[in-house]
Amino acid sequence: MDAHLKETKIDGGLAYDGYFLKVHKDRVTLPDGKPTGREYIKHPGAVVIIPVLDDGRVLLERQFRYPLDRVFIELPAGKKDAGETALEGAKRELEEETGYTASDWQFVCTIHNAIAYSDEHLDIFLARGLTAGPPKLDEGEFVETMAVSVEQMLDWVRSGEITDVKTMIGAFWLEKILAGAWQPG
Amino acid sequence: MDAHLKETKIDGGLAYDGYFLKVHKDRVTLPDGKPTGREYIKHPGAVVIIPVLDDGRVLLERQFRYPLDRVFIELPAGKKDAGETALEGAKRELEEETGYTASDWQFVCTIHNAIAYSDEHLDIFLARGLTAGPPKLDEGEFVETMAVSVEQMLDWVRSGEITDVKTMIGAFWLEKILAGAWQPG
Repeated sequence: MDAHLKETKIDGGLAYDGYFLKVHKDRVTLPDGKPTGREYIKHPGAVVIIPVLDDGRVLLERQFRYPLDRVFIELPAGKKDAGETALEGAKRELEEETGYTASDWQFVCTIHNAIAYSDEHLDIFLARGLTAGPPKLDEGEFVETMAVSVEQMLDWVRSGEITDVKTMIGAFWLEKILAGAWQPG
Repeated sequence: MDAHLKETKIDGGLAYDGYFLKVHKDRVTLPDGKPTGREYIKHPGAVVIIPVLDDGRVLLERQFRYPLDRVFIELPAGKKDAGETALEGAKRELEEETGYTASDWQFVCTIHNAIAYSDEHLDIFLARGLTAGPPKLDEGEFVETMAVSVEQMLDWVRSGEITDVKTMIGAFWLEKILAGAWQPG
């Protein structure tokens, strides 16, 4: 049904193979038959966790993000490892970054964060029934954890203190779930 | 205050200069003094428009996105041109992609969509007082426009029909604005 919008690959492939960024550069045919170039990052996919403590507070992280040269407030998240399901990745990342494990996991939604130049998708999970433990940060990973109310999190979205998209969307979805308006999954 | 999280550049620079992707590859010092590599896309920034017609419907687009090989439902958006303010870019993109001009513009929020590997930020604007005109699509740009209710847009976010982050966040923010709960700007 979308043939009048579709672009078709002519040729191309991996054009830049970096530390972790893989850039693909293709020649494609536009819907009107003309050729053009397309470039994008191949990404393994990522997971995001909304960890809600028994007292209702949400676990957030403060992490330095080099591309923007500052610290961001974020939900716990990370890239999927090879061969791992999204849920397995979410459980691993939550424990590595915060030390917490959770007894109750629910899939919330999938998001696409940079559709013009990346095939990345992020699967967001709600984690409840949390039990504290020691974090197991990867070598070279520096993360601060804090717990704030949902109201505080939403107020930081409103005020611009939180601008990271996965964290904004997690806050909005959590508000819908807690209001009983939307169901995860 | 965030010295214990900060990473500092040792050296590096442009490592891949593609059609439009510019990848920077740096060596950096971690907070514990150890060296590591960081890589990211340098992006000029983008603008997003939430165009609300006088009857309350929102203008959305259907556009093929090559990295994910399918059509996405999106708010109108585009990269900023050199020397352009975000508001100028938003006015230009709305008219190019949909043909509409707007008499009432309000800044909503700034979002960061890929903080692990891109310095991109997107400025979102609310546009009202819309007047129709002919679209002025760039050469090689193929976009379908449609108008849907805010309720429909939110239902597509809930159901997973809309997964593009700028469009999800625009829908959530618009709901808050229309409810009088949050003010743009």
